[in-house]
Amino acid sequence: MSDIQELKDQFDGYKALNLNLAMTRGQPADSNFDLSNDMFTMVTGEDTVTPSGIEIRNYPGGVAGLPEARELFGEMLGVKPEEMLLGTNASLMVMNQVLTWALLKGVNGSPRPWIQDNPKLMVTVPGYDRHFKLAQGLGFELVPVDMTPEGPDMEQVEKLAAEDASIKGIYFVPVYSNPTGDSISDENVRRMVSMKTAAPDFTILADNAYAVHHLDPNDKTVPLNFVRAAEEAGNPNRAILFGSTSKVTFASGGIGFMGTSVDNIAYFSKLFNLTTIGPNKVEQYRHVRFFQTIDGGIDGLMAQHAEIIKPKFDVVHKVLDAHLAGTGLATWSRPKGGYFISLDTAKPVASRVVELAKELGVALTPAGATYPGGVDPSNKNIRLAPTRPPVEEVEKAMEVVALCIKLASAEA
Amino acid sequence: MSDIQELKDQFDGYKALNLNLAMTRGQPADSNFDLSNDMFTMVTGEDTVTPSGIEIRNYPGGVAGLPEARELFGEMLGVKPEEMLLGTNASLMVMNQVLTWALLKGVNGSPRPWIQDNPKLMVTVPGYDRHFKLAQGLGFELVPVDMTPEGPDMEQVEKLAAEDASIKGIYFVPVYSNPTGDSISDENVRRMVSMKTAAPDFTILADNAYAVHHLDPNDKTVPLNFVRAAEEAGNPNRAILFGSTSKVTFASGGIGFMGTSVDNIAYFSKLFNLTTIGPNKVEQYRHVRFFQTIDGGIDGLMAQHAEIIKPKFDVVHKVLDAHLAGTGLATWSRPKGGYFISLDTAKPVASRVVELAKELGVALTPAGATYPGGVDPSNKNIRLAPTRPPVEEVEKAMEVVALCIKLASAEA
Repeated sequence: MSDIQELKDQFDGYKALNLNLAMTRGQPADSNFDLSNDMFTMVTGEDTVTPSGIEIRNYPGGVAGLPEARELFGEMLGVKPEEMLLGTNASLMVMNQVLTWALLKGVNGSPRPWIQDNPKLMVTVPGYDRHFKLAQGLGFELVPVDMTPEGPDMEQVEKLAAEDASIKGIYFVPVYSNPTGDSISDENVRRMVSMKTAAPDFTILADNAYAVHHLDPNDKTVPLNFVRAAEEAGNPNRAILFGSTSKVTFASGGIGFMGTSVDNIAYFSKLFNLTTIGPNKVEQYRHVRFFQTIDGGIDGLMAQHAEIIKPKFDVVHKVLDAHLAGTGLATWSRPKGGYFISLDTAKPVASRVVELAKELGVALTPAGATYPGGVDPSNKNIRLAPTRPPVEEVEKAMEVVALCIKLASAEA
Repeated sequence: MSDIQELKDQFDGYKALNLNLAMTRGQPADSNFDLSNDMFTMVTGEDTVTPSGIEIRNYPGGVAGLPEARELFGEMLGVKPEEMLLGTNASLMVMNQVLTWALLKGVNGSPRPWIQDNPKLMVTVPGYDRHFKLAQGLGFELVPVDMTPEGPDMEQVEKLAAEDASIKGIYFVPVYSNPTGDSISDENVRRMVSMKTAAPDFTILADNAYAVHHLDPNDKTVPLNFVRAAEEAGNPNRAILFGSTSKVTFASGGIGFMGTSVDNIAYFSKLFNLTTIGPNKVEQYRHVRFFQTIDGGIDGLMAQHAEIIKPKFDVVHKVLDAHLAGTGLATWSRPKGGYFISLDTAKPVASRVVELAKELGVALTPAGATYPGGVDPSNKNIRLAPTRPPVEEVEKAMEVVALCIKLASAEA
C-alpha cells in the first residue's frame, strides 16, 4: 500500500467519526468568561456615583471616559490616565474612529485631511484580517511588510516610510501578534518611533490586543512602550496604542480604548465629542469595581486565563511535534502569549489543507485570511485558533490538521 | 420710580439670593434614572444565553444586535425587528456611522460616495445643536429650513430638494422636536417620502429621540411612520429613523439604534461589520429582561417618566403665563412631549436674557445654540430645558428668566 493510500484510509477513518469541531476565530471559551461573571452585578442602584463624583447614569463625565477607568485600563497599555481615551465595546470601532477622522480631518498636526493624499497604510503579513478589511473598506491602499520574530521588518518599513509620502502609517499587532505570536523588539520600537518619514503625519497604529495575554505569568513579553518611546524620540504624537477587555472580561460586553500623547487625546476628544457625549460609563464602572475584587487586579485575572488557555496551546504543539516534527512538511510558531499559532506548510497547500479538514468536520480559519484581500501569495499560511474549544477537541482537531497536511503534501 | 428701575431693583433682589440653578441641557433627573435601577442586576452569570440561543458574553450574535433587542426597540420606532440595527449607547454615534459611510461610500444605491459631491444637508431651525455640530464637523454644508407646527416647512424642503442635487438629505427631529416640541404632520411625512429630489440618493435622517416621550400617556403624538410611508411611496430606502434609550433607561448606559428598510439594514450591516463584530449584547439583554418586568413595557415606564416630567413643564408654563402673558414680550411653545420648551423674545434680546440670567446664577442654553454655527440671526430663541432640576428649582429659575426677559426688553 502506498503512503498516500494509507493517508487516504486514515482520512476515511476520520470521516466516519462525523466530527464537528471549530478552530476558526480567536474567541475565549465560556470558562474564560466565567472568570468575570461577578462583574455582572458589580454596580447597583445604590452605587451610581464614582469616587471622582460622576453620576454614571447621566450624560456628563467626559468623552474620554471615567477617570477611574482611564487609570485602570491605562495600566493595560502602560500609559498614564491622561493619555487614555475609552470607547465602545470594540477596539476595532475606536481604530475606525481614528482612521475615519484622519481621512476626513487629518490626525493631530496633519497639513490636510488624509483623503486628499490617496493614503496608504503598511500592514504586516501574515496579519489580522479585520485590520485589512477595515482599512481597505475605508479606502486605504495596503502596503504589506513582512512580520519577523522581532516585529515588522524594519528594513522594509524604514525604506517605504522614507520614500512614499502617501504612506500615512503602519497598522499591526505589536505583542503576541495575530497570527504569528511574534512580539516587537525594543530596538525595533526605537527605530519605528524615530525613523524619517516622508509623511509629516505618519502614525503608528499599534493594536495591542494581547498586551496582558501571557501564557506564563512568569514569562511576560513587554516591549518598550510605544507612547513613551515616541515621546523620548521627539515624535510624541506619532504612536497610538489600542486595546480592549474583549479577551479579559467579556468579548461583547468589554471596553475598547486607545493610549497616546495628551495632545493627541485632546485632538481626538474634540472630534469624538462630535459623535457622542461619552462612552458607556455604567460598563466602565462595572469593570473598575470588578477589578478591585480580584487578587492582583488585571494581572491576577490574566493568570487565571492562562491556566485555561496554556494547555490548549500545549496540546497543539504536542500533536504537531508528534506528527510533523522532522517531516519537513510544515513549520509553526511557539508564542508566549496571545490567541493564535501560525503554521506554514512547506508546499503551497494551505487552502487544500483547510478544504480537507472541512471535509472531516474541522473548521479552520480560511487559508489566505492572514493576507490582504484574503490571498496568501504562497498559499502556505494557516492560522490556528485553539482558545475556544475544550482541550480534547483541540487535540482531535489538530490530529485532523496534521493528517490533512500530510495528505495535501503527498497529493501535491 | 421708572419701570426699568423697578425691574433693576428686582434683579438686585435676586442677585442677593446667590442662586445656582441650571436649565442648560436635556438631561433626565436622578429620579428618572431611579425608575430603571432594577436593570443593573437583570443579567447574571447564571443567565448568559438568550432565548434565541445567543451567548451574550461572546462575539457572535450579529452586527445588528440581539433578535430580542431588535424586537423590543423596533417597538419604539414602530418598525419590524428585521428593520432594526442596534449600536452603542449614543444614537448620535449611529448617525455618525451612517453619515460617515455615506461620505466615504454612499448610501444604499448611491451612484458614488457623497464626499465627491460637496454634500449639503437640510436642517430645521431652530433645531438641535449636536446635529449641526456633527454634520458640519463631518464636512457637510448645512441648509437651514424653518420648523413649523407641522414639522419642517415642506414648501422650502421640496423646492430645495428638487433644485439642488448636492443636497443629500434632511436631518431633523420629527416628534416633539428639539427645541420647539413640534411634531411632523402625516401629510408632511407623505410629502417628504414622495417628493421629487435632484439627488437620487436623498436620505431622510429622522432623529426620533422622543418617540415615546409623551407628557400625557393619554395624549400621544404618533405621526405616520417614516419607514412605512417611504415603502408605500415607492421610495423604501429613503428614510432612516434613529432613536435611543438614553432618556428611557440610562443616559450613559442606554442603547442607540436605527430603523430603516431591510435592504438598508443589509447595506449598513456590511459596512458597520467592518468596524465591529457587534454591539454590546450584555447591555442589550439587560434592557430586554428589564422591560419584561415592567407593567406595560416601554409605555409603562414612559408613563412613570411623564409623572416626573410633566409637573416641570407645567411650572414653566405657569410662571411664563403669570409674568409674560399679554405683555407682548415673548411667545413660547406648549409641547405635548419631549424635553424642551422653546421661547422667542419679541425683541432681539435672547443673548442678553441668557447673560442676565447667568448674573443671577441661572445657567441657560447659550442663545444661538439652536441655530447652525451658534448664531440665531434674529437673536430671539431661547431653549428651556426643565427636566433635570426639581420642580421648585425650575419654578425659581423661570421667575428669573421672566424677569430677565422684561429687563432686557426694557433696556432694548
